[in-house]
Amino acid sequence: MQENRCDVFIIGAGPAGLSAAIYCSRAGLSTLVFGSPEKSNIARAHAVENYFGVAETLSGKALLENGKAQAQRFGTRFLNSDAVDIKKNEDGAFVIKDSLAQPYVSRSVIICSGMGFKKSGIENERKLTGKGVSFCAACDGFFFKNKSVVIVGGSNFATEEAIHLAAHAAKVAILSHGKDFSIGKEMEKLIAKNKIKLMKSPVIKSFEGEDNLQRLIFADGSEMACDGAFLALGNATASDFANRLGLARAGAGNAFIVADPRTGETNVKGVYAAGDCTGGNAQVAKSVGEGCNAAVSVIKFIKGVKAYADYA
Amino acid sequence: MQENRCDVFIIGAGPAGLSAAIYCSRAGLSTLVFGSPEKSNIARAHAVENYFGVAETLSGKALLENGKAQAQRFGTRFLNSDAVDIKKNEDGAFVIKDSLAQPYVSRSVIICSGMGFKKSGIENERKLTGKGVSFCAACDGFFFKNKSVVIVGGSNFATEEAIHLAAHAAKVAILSHGKDFSIGKEMEKLIAKNKIKLMKSPVIKSFEGEDNLQRLIFADGSEMACDGAFLALGNATASDFANRLGLARAGAGNAFIVADPRTGETNVKGVYAAGDCTGGNAQVAKSVGEGCNAAVSVIKFIKGVKAYADYA
Repeated sequence: MQENRCDVFIIGAGPAGLSAAIYCSRAGLSTLVFGSPEKSNIARAHAVENYFGVAETLSGKALLENGKAQAQRFGTRFLNSDAVDIKKNEDGAFVIKDSLAQPYVSRSVIICSGMGFKKSGIENERKLTGKGVSFCAACDGFFFKNKSVVIVGGSNFATEEAIHLAAHAAKVAILSHGKDFSIGKEMEKLIAKNKIKLMKSPVIKSFEGEDNLQRLIFADGSEMACDGAFLALGNATASDFANRLGLARAGAGNAFIVADPRTGETNVKGVYAAGDCTGGNAQVAKSVGEGCNAAVSVIKFIKGVKAYADYA
Repeated sequence: MQENRCDVFIIGAGPAGLSAAIYCSRAGLSTLVFGSPEKSNIARAHAVENYFGVAETLSGKALLENGKAQAQRFGTRFLNSDAVDIKKNEDGAFVIKDSLAQPYVSRSVIICSGMGFKKSGIENERKLTGKGVSFCAACDGFFFKNKSVVIVGGSNFATEEAIHLAAHAAKVAILSHGKDFSIGKEMEKLIAKNKIKLMKSPVIKSFEGEDNLQRLIFADGSEMACDGAFLALGNATASDFANRLGLARAGAGNAFIVADPRTGETNVKGVYAAGDCTGGNAQVAKSVGEGCNAAVSVIKFIKGVKAYADYA
């Protein structure tokens, strides 16, 4: 392919994006992936036991590495930069600018941008983000060496974040923020092993601190001192890409792009979506299946054929 | 679990059924699988290159063996017999009788019965089935040692059947039966390597022979002698299970069970379906994802909970 032209952009390199990339490039489409596997939520899973067909239990990271190698074997090109802007031209082509302000042009797009990070709506969240409030343990954990941190959330995702932080911070607690915990048994063992405290807490009303986070104030008036608060509340509201392309959205907070799970089709011609960013079960298997389905649609669209042949 | 009682029946042990079995048993549900992986269409694929996450390219058989081992590790029980009858009792329980006339009782069912074998409608098909006309190279290929056989079909599936037969038969030809071929490049190489003849044939009008198949007669009046004819035309019409349970159907010839791809739900409470028997792309990835989705629904149904927790 020409340096900056291709048949299909894939935004996101988690299980959905990589599955789509494997199919598209194997069918001979020039395929360009924005984003990196390390940013996928599954990259933080220490073990994925429920994904069909893998002989030994692999970490999320190992699964992603395998998938990336498969896609590269068929010719998928990976950009290390993220897509920061996208528009549809009058001639129907899509133009993406990446974080290096480089433009790329393609005839189709598959959005597999994943869950992202859900805002909490807690007072002072925005003011203190980057100043003690964070959405990513892998990104910011290092800065909390020997400090006291909390994770806000109640799921296995929150637990993975906590385990990551336990490698750096002196004290780690998971606060349920007024809800029930929903954590697997194996994860509970890891919580104990890593000396992480599980606290069924009231709703957090506000983050407090001058230049940096110093304490939490709960809805019942009680307080708790901490140096860092990591938000792990699940999926984000819809991505910027959806807004820029005029994609239909649904779900709580319009968080999800509306896409047919069997074809990946959205309301905009040439734009497909798959995986966590479209809602449904947040499972590797489901995302891989939808990535495959979206790719099959793109292959038919680009080649102008009605049936998908296996392009081996 | 008690000998003949369980939480969930899974009918079929292909990628959808095994993915569902892994999820259900890992969540603590007593899980009983009817059917065997060897009967899955993917068992005949010599290489599956497009399934995300697998480091080395595996055969379909190896993928299925891995999946079965995963399910067994979590406690799934496999019956070697097939399910031959199913009904829903007045109390909402499902009773299956297997090929040994043994009854089993469960609270839910996931149907993953795959594509099955499509009838051709060619004259004398029924009369000569088992007498030269067959639907399964793996089952009957052995009987055509040093004989001359044809495969009727035009897809990679037909090619896999032909390759299987080439190990036994003296002469193997694939007849397109009035349609175009849709065969991948890698498969074309295998066709050449195995000295299989590709024949763009007219529509076959009838199978002819007294006790056994002796020749084909084409719609244009021409004839061709052969000892065996293997039909590889794609998916079957709907399974008996669907009829017996009153499941809604759709697609050409009502071949598919109507199921929500995101939840596996059918029109009958407690009955879910996933994979090829529900239509959509016939791809391992897609079936594995739908098996996962159906299983998550069953787990919520049996446990009476609204959210799925990862049960590790």
